[in-house]
Amino acid sequence: MTELSNSYLEEAIEDSRPYASQGKVNMNLPDYGEANKDYLGVSIITTDGSCYSAGDHDQYIPMQSTSKVISLMLALQDFGKDRVFQTVGMEPMGDFFNSISQLESYDTSKPFNPMINAGAIATASLIKGQSVENRFDRYMHFLKKITSNDHLEMSGEMYEAEKANGSRNRSLAYFMHSTGTLVTDVEEALDLYYRMNAVMMCCHDFARVGLFLAKGGLDPDTEESLIPAHHLRTVKAIMMTSGMYNSSGHYAVEAGFPCKSGVSGSIIGTVPGRMGIGVVGPAIDEKGNSTAGGALIKKLSRDLKLNMFGIENTERTKDHAF
Amino acid sequence: MTELSNSYLEEAIEDSRPYASQGKVNMNLPDYGEANKDYLGVSIITTDGSCYSAGDHDQYIPMQSTSKVISLMLALQDFGKDRVFQTVGMEPMGDFFNSISQLESYDTSKPFNPMINAGAIATASLIKGQSVENRFDRYMHFLKKITSNDHLEMSGEMYEAEKANGSRNRSLAYFMHSTGTLVTDVEEALDLYYRMNAVMMCCHDFARVGLFLAKGGLDPDTEESLIPAHHLRTVKAIMMTSGMYNSSGHYAVEAGFPCKSGVSGSIIGTVPGRMGIGVVGPAIDEKGNSTAGGALIKKLSRDLKLNMFGIENTERTKDHAF
Amino acid sequence: MTELSNSYLEEAIEDSRPYASQGKVNMNLPDYGEANKDYLGVSIITTDGSCYSAGDHDQYIPMQSTSKVISLMLALQDFGKDRVFQTVGMEPMGDFFNSISQLESYDTSKPFNPMINAGAIATASLIKGQSVENRFDRYMHFLKKITSNDHLEMSGEMYEAEKANGSRNRSLAYFMHSTGTLVTDVEEALDLYYRMNAVMMCCHDFARVGLFLAKGGLDPDTEESLIPAHHLRTVKAIMMTSGMYNSSGHYAVEAGFPCKSGVSGSIIGTVPGRMGIGVVGPAIDEKGNSTAGGALIKKLSRDLKLNMFGIENTERTKDHAF
Amino acid sequence: MTELSNSYLEEAIEDSRPYASQGKVNMNLPDYGEANKDYLGVSIITTDGSCYSAGDHDQYIPMQSTSKVISLMLALQDFGKDRVFQTVGMEPMGDFFNSISQLESYDTSKPFNPMINAGAIATASLIKGQSVENRFDRYMHFLKKITSNDHLEMSGEMYEAEKANGSRNRSLAYFMHSTGTLVTDVEEALDLYYRMNAVMMCCHDFARVGLFLAKGGLDPDTEESLIPAHHLRTVKAIMMTSGMYNSSGHYAVEAGFPCKSGVSGSIIGTVPGRMGIGVVGPAIDEKGNSTAGGALIKKLSRDLKLNMFGIENTERTKDHAF
Repeated sequence: MTELSNSYLEEAIEDSRPYASQGKVNMNLPDYGEANKDYLGVSIITTDGSCYSAGDHDQYIPMQSTSKVISLMLALQDFGKDRVFQTVGMEPMGDFFNSISQLESYDTSKPFNPMINAGAIATASLIKGQSVENRFDRYMHFLKKITSNDHLEMSGEMYEAEKANGSRNRSLAYFMHSTGTLVTDVEEALDLYYRMNAVMMCCHDFARVGLFLAKGGLDPDTEESLIPAHHLRTVKAIMMTSGMYNSSGHYAVEAGFPCKSGVSGSIIGTVPGRMGIGVVGPAIDEKGNSTAGGALIKKLSRDLKLNMFGIENTERTKDHAF
Repeated sequence: MTELSNSYLEEAIEDSRPYASQGKVNMNLPDYGEANKDYLGVSIITTDGSCYSAGDHDQYIPMQSTSKVISLMLALQDFGKDRVFQTVGMEPMGDFFNSISQLESYDTSKPFNPMINAGAIATASLIKGQSVENRFDRYMHFLKKITSNDHLEMSGEMYEAEKANGSRNRSLAYFMHSTGTLVTDVEEALDLYYRMNAVMMCCHDFARVGLFLAKGGLDPDTEESLIPAHHLRTVKAIMMTSGMYNSSGHYAVEAGFPCKSGVSGSIIGTVPGRMGIGVVGPAIDEKGNSTAGGALIKKLSRDLKLNMFGIENTERTKDHAF
Repeated sequence: MTELSNSYLEEAIEDSRPYASQGKVNMNLPDYGEANKDYLGVSIITTDGSCYSAGDHDQYIPMQSTSKVISLMLALQDFGKDRVFQTVGMEPMGDFFNSISQLESYDTSKPFNPMINAGAIATASLIKGQSVENRFDRYMHFLKKITSNDHLEMSGEMYEAEKANGSRNRSLAYFMHSTGTLVTDVEEALDLYYRMNAVMMCCHDFARVGLFLAKGGLDPDTEESLIPAHHLRTVKAIMMTSGMYNSSGHYAVEAGFPCKSGVSGSIIGTVPGRMGIGVVGPAIDEKGNSTAGGALIKKLSRDLKLNMFGIENTERTKDHAF
Repeated sequence: MTELSNSYLEEAIEDSRPYASQGKVNMNLPDYGEANKDYLGVSIITTDGSCYSAGDHDQYIPMQSTSKVISLMLALQDFGKDRVFQTVGMEPMGDFFNSISQLESYDTSKPFNPMINAGAIATASLIKGQSVENRFDRYMHFLKKITSNDHLEMSGEMYEAEKANGSRNRSLAYFMHSTGTLVTDVEEALDLYYRMNAVMMCCHDFARVGLFLAKGGLDPDTEESLIPAHHLRTVKAIMMTSGMYNSSGHYAVEAGFPCKSGVSGSIIGTVPGRMGIGVVGPAIDEKGNSTAGGALIKKLSRDLKLNMFGIENTERTKDHAF
């Protein structure tokens, strides 16, 4: 088993960076030109607190869909599992992340899960608060706490860009409103969703979110429990089956630990009990996942034996067998 | 953490048995009358060789869809990962297990994954052999080896019943033949598929399959490797995302370890590095999963801390952190 | 063949009125209570100018989807056939009138035809004008001319109700905007669409629209051509294949002449070269068609030999054979 | 209005023949090589008995889907409208002719209409008879009678080719068997369907079928009624909405009279009270319709004023107005 170190990560970055050329940068995002295409960065923080980084790890990008992980945690905290999953399902779907057909299909109009756009809009609409501002404040407060980073903020430019290209999400939201899945004001639900997506983070912040999941909900500073561990099990399970758009099955096989990606090229990875991983690589494939970032995630899994379905990962537990 | 014992399992069975009344026995199977509806049995074999059983654990039922796990292992062994996944996908789908619509959708006619009927028929068609008999012999030889049970055999009656009710599967197979996904003789592919489904097993046999996966492919008698561990990681990942029909997401959340069910009421469970689980409970829900068996699987996960996304499951590894 | 007369129509109304009890009044429309459920009225105007009416023929109801006929005529007039059918298809669909799945299917995001909501919103967006007001004025001007009724106007109450229940249409419109089918301002396109639907008409007005189509586009007052006859052939053909929601095939068989219905219970019928028919019957079936009105349309077809596929309808042309 | 004559038809053929280059010959049919690609022939028989032909009108090709018109007439004759439309719908669908998705959709597994493959297989299964041979004999007897051609016969070679490429139809048939739509033996239903499709006809025969429909069911020799006129109205209406695969809407607009095409390049056209049209042109477009034949049908409609939605077609009836 390869030992984790900064120099190992540098090598891994150089191995994976060439995959960026197979992807395209999401041109709906401002300042996201071809210039940024080859960016690739990674941070890993282990449960014992060690931190490793390499490549363009200090590059800030918008959370985009990685925000779905945060809003699901908050909604579970605010309403509990039963209520959340009355509004949104927990089943993976073999379909595009912004599919509207599935909302119309069969006897249900419930979005399949909280990791697809429709499901995330519905989930975000559950977060408690008197106003969009208030609800977004709560989101930011929670995010700053679990990343231990008080400086996080939304990019106004990204927010505006998101809003300007929002027709598909609007369509999803109004559809859910017409079926009664979304009961709050549609424009407010979308506004909150756009804000969440526009928060800027770097690898270290993404890794901190992964670490929070890996440690079962402990405050990174105080080690006290911020959110019940069973809610985080739920989040991790849904990331595993549905976190990587319609390549989720592929990543379950090839990475083997829970991940969530965003079309900005961000990836949050979490290996329960071991580490959180944050990746930034703006060039994405046609499914929406970072090409170089995905290659890196899979390489880390192989080299560091992170695959949860692997026996190597568990042989060390032999003496714990009962 | 509850300690695993026969008496614990007896209690768990009695707790879970009442859920049988919420299900229905699959009437397409002979001798599967209401009389059997309340049957519920379980066997667990840990990686150190200890075996625990309770309830109707010696009741034999046909494998049905649990055979998909075996045929995927054999196909991977025969052809390797690349070739197998040229024929069948590895993505979960939020749809019924015998869906034909998905075969027609978008730009692909490849079945979503090897755990749905279409995918399993395509996977089985890959197994090497000169004839149906020969290919089925290879299947049985492999199955007997990994279960360490030479007495396993196919039920002629179940095979005939399967064949007589086979219109939907025939439809799937001919569709795949028309698109070039299934290139072998259709009736032979179906015949092999029906035979596999009709093999009779009891809880101990199902648990043995789970154990084989949990131990990464070691011969239960000789401890030598029968199949590369990475193939078994693939199988377990696909069971996690797609093994429980369109409740797979629910089981990823509520059980948190790889499972595969069959409409006979069988369930194979596997906890990597820890144990194999076999469950028999003929009353199934509308998705195709054993109602009492599913309740039991979820109870075992909670009581024995089997959820792979859980932190309790991994705290014991703290001293292994790097 | 039954002779057309007011007394015949009175009988036909009484025969058909009981079917109202099989339908439901659309409760999204104000003042559309159970009180109105049994209303049934009809007007027929023949190409020689004779006019017959019976029942509640002076009851005013909103046009709803019957406006789709008007906006298609205007769009064809403004842009010609080629341009209109670059934006919207001309194929019938066996699906619900507000289906969004079809927009996502296969390689096209073009709405199937101008008689479904998505297609009508796209068609309306083509109508020329500097502003919503200006475009709606042109619509009203055209409508008043072909109905020879200067008193037609929009109901503000119906417009507001339409707007308040507009989530599904908004979803359709934003979806089309996201795919580039709808290139104008979405809210303006919807606003125009809602206004058109909220224009109040009675049987005589609906019959006048049918007559305009039946006479190939002649001004009812001056007999001069207002719109090329070939555009009206297009409109009538599309009404035949797609005018009665997903009962269009049923009405092609059972009525056999072009019709268009609205969820207010309105029906426009047109028998080329013979007559225009206007029907009002607020109780609608689950497909969106007036139950009593539909029964009446089918009775008229049988009694008056209006089925264009019928030989009786054409025997009179024997001496014209070549 | 152009006068109908052999020389006019020769001109029309030469105008339309170049469109053959835009199509492809169906290579699943034997002897259907590129050599035949430019074939184009037409026959027209008017209700007064005059017959006109031009081009390759004596070229024999298999009926393919034009047989659907015959089997629908026979099924209506054998069982009546109610019974037939319990098994198959009468709604057009905006989907591919061999779509299986629609069978799975919504709450019905009834094929949309008798003009698509699934619907035609179900319809054919209704035709009375003790055996496939007996039922096919009845089909041939009826076909010979309405075409007044005792020499019609099935091509064994075409039948074998159809059978060898039958996986998609098999898939459709077994699907319908699994849902209870098809209650007879599946292989027998398919066998009958393949035989019907393999009957060889030339333009004159196809035109005779169109004439039979145009005259409302009269025996071409004796002028006595062979089948009630109302059944033929039903057939013609369904041809109008669904006869040209998923270009049916296009042909309703551009031709404006009932047509049915087959992938062999055959087209049956019928103008009620006026004429039957038979076209042969083997090069088909991606929807399944003859490219040159379709161009010819549309040219005939324009030149001879055959569009039933046209006012020119009906102005002659002004003196019959009531």
